[in-house]
Amino acid sequence: MRDIVIIGHKAKTSGDFSLNDLPGSAGRMDILCRCVSSALFLSFGMRRDVNVHLLLLGDPEPGKIIRFEGLHLRYLNPDERSSGSLIQKALQKNITERDIRSTPGVWIRNGDLNTLLASFEGRTLLYLREDGEDIRGLAGEIRDPVFILGDHTGVTEEEEKQLLEAGAKIISVGPISLHSNHCITLIHNELDRAEAERGEIPGGEKLRVKE
Amino acid sequence: MRDIVIIGHKAKTSGDFSLNDLPGSAGRMDILCRCVSSALFLSFGMRRDVNVHLLLLGDPEPGKIIRFEGLHLRYLNPDERSSGSLIQKALQKNITERDIRSTPGVWIRNGDLNTLLASFEGRTLLYLREDGEDIRGLAGEIRDPVFILGDHTGVTEEEEKQLLEAGAKIISVGPISLHSNHCITLIHNELDRAEAERGEIPGGEKLRVKE
Ligand SMILES: C[S@@+](CC[C@H](N)C(=O)[O-])C[C@H]1O[C@@H](n2cnc3c(N)ncnc32)[C@H](O)[C@@H]1O
Ligand SMILES: C[S@@+](CC[C@H](N)C(=O)[O-])C[C@H]1O[C@@H](n2cnc3c(N)ncnc32)[C@H](O)[C@@H]1O
Repeated sequence: MRDIVIIGHKAKTSGDFSLNDLPGSAGRMDILCRCVSSALFLSFGMRRDVNVHLLLLGDPEPGKIIRFEGLHLRYLNPDERSSGSLIQKALQKNITERDIRSTPGVWIRNGDLNTLLASFEGRTLLYLREDGEDIRGLAGEIRDPVFILGDHTGVTEEEEKQLLEAGAKIISVGPISLHSNHCITLIHNELDRAEAERGEIPGGEKLRVKE
Repeated sequence: MRDIVIIGHKAKTSGDFSLNDLPGSAGRMDILCRCVSSALFLSFGMRRDVNVHLLLLGDPEPGKIIRFEGLHLRYLNPDERSSGSLIQKALQKNITERDIRSTPGVWIRNGDLNTLLASFEGRTLLYLREDGEDIRGLAGEIRDPVFILGDHTGVTEEEEKQLLEAGAKIISVGPISLHSNHCITLIHNELDRAEAERGEIPGGEKLRVKE
């Protein structure tokens, strides 16, 4: 499994935004939408071995977690509006501390970064930061990873502290600061290559359902 | 310079489409919009050393070329709707064989793949195909490249013939078929890393204007 967490500091936590204005009305939700797409899409079909966790920290009720499970996901197209629409549907649910499913493969609950980190106990936490250790030297060793990325404002000091206390290792994907969704594409490529080198079929092929 | 060509076989060649339905009404224009964004955006600002050429081959008048010049580009945000809107504005111009500017850094003219290839004389043509030679072994040697990618339907036999006759080399970015915009992110990363290894500042920093 590859789990990917993106922290959306301004991302709206109610469904009353316009799909015609994801950057503005939805608090830079466009960033999270692109991350969902980069995390889950292959040329033909979905990466079935990927879960995406969006941590929404914007108004009006900061602290919602939306999870996209590649294995069960349906009704997702690669365009921003498509993931935006599934996010909106999730936010229109009656949200509690317990997971509820809004559409196939999409789940939502209340929670914060600590909630998420607690759910990853025993996994390898990899926090993406521009000055981290180069993933290229490490990809062959990485098993069952959880990647954590910031949005356009990065990751706060407080969040970084929580990540490091939880044992996260800091990794970089290259010599220049990029958008979060581009980083996700680069992570996948490193892991796909490592899987192919080990003689495995990359991209969650084993789990893939023909679409 | 890094030039990137994406062939949009279904992409609408008139401006009468809806920004609310880039996949449908605009002939999978969403694919080209994501390519523009992946080609041009860094975390802070634009890649000033990149030109993107969209070859639009859909109805009603197949054969339009829209060029985004990183060096002069303005009014572009990373979301799909933003590049979609600049594409739409370009398509609303009175289009001839000669370049006309629609908005700062965006140009449009009539033309086909041969028009484009003729304009790249003397450049290194690199055609992206899943079974090509791995870019990872080559990136250090690449100077002044022009990359050519297909859309969701790939590249036709006829187009491939033209590319090979023009001297294009076939390269791959990894062991699995990906979306065109993801391939662009991977190309950039390989070249950024090669530039950094040579002691250059990657990402067109020399040309960059502070935004
Ligand atoms: C747009 S960047 C954030 C920009 C900047 N770090 C800040 O604090 O405002 C979004 C996220 O992508 C990740 N990121 C961007 N470039 C990276 C790189 N070269 N290596 C590792 N992670 C990167 C980081 O997780 C970052 O929080
Ligand atoms: C969605 S893919 C096209 C899918 C498939 N090749 C077809 O013919 O329908 C879009 C484009 O991305 C490029 N591409 C995708 N995966 C690639 C890889 N692993 N290496 C090189 N290029 C790739 C190719 O240029 C391809 O035309």
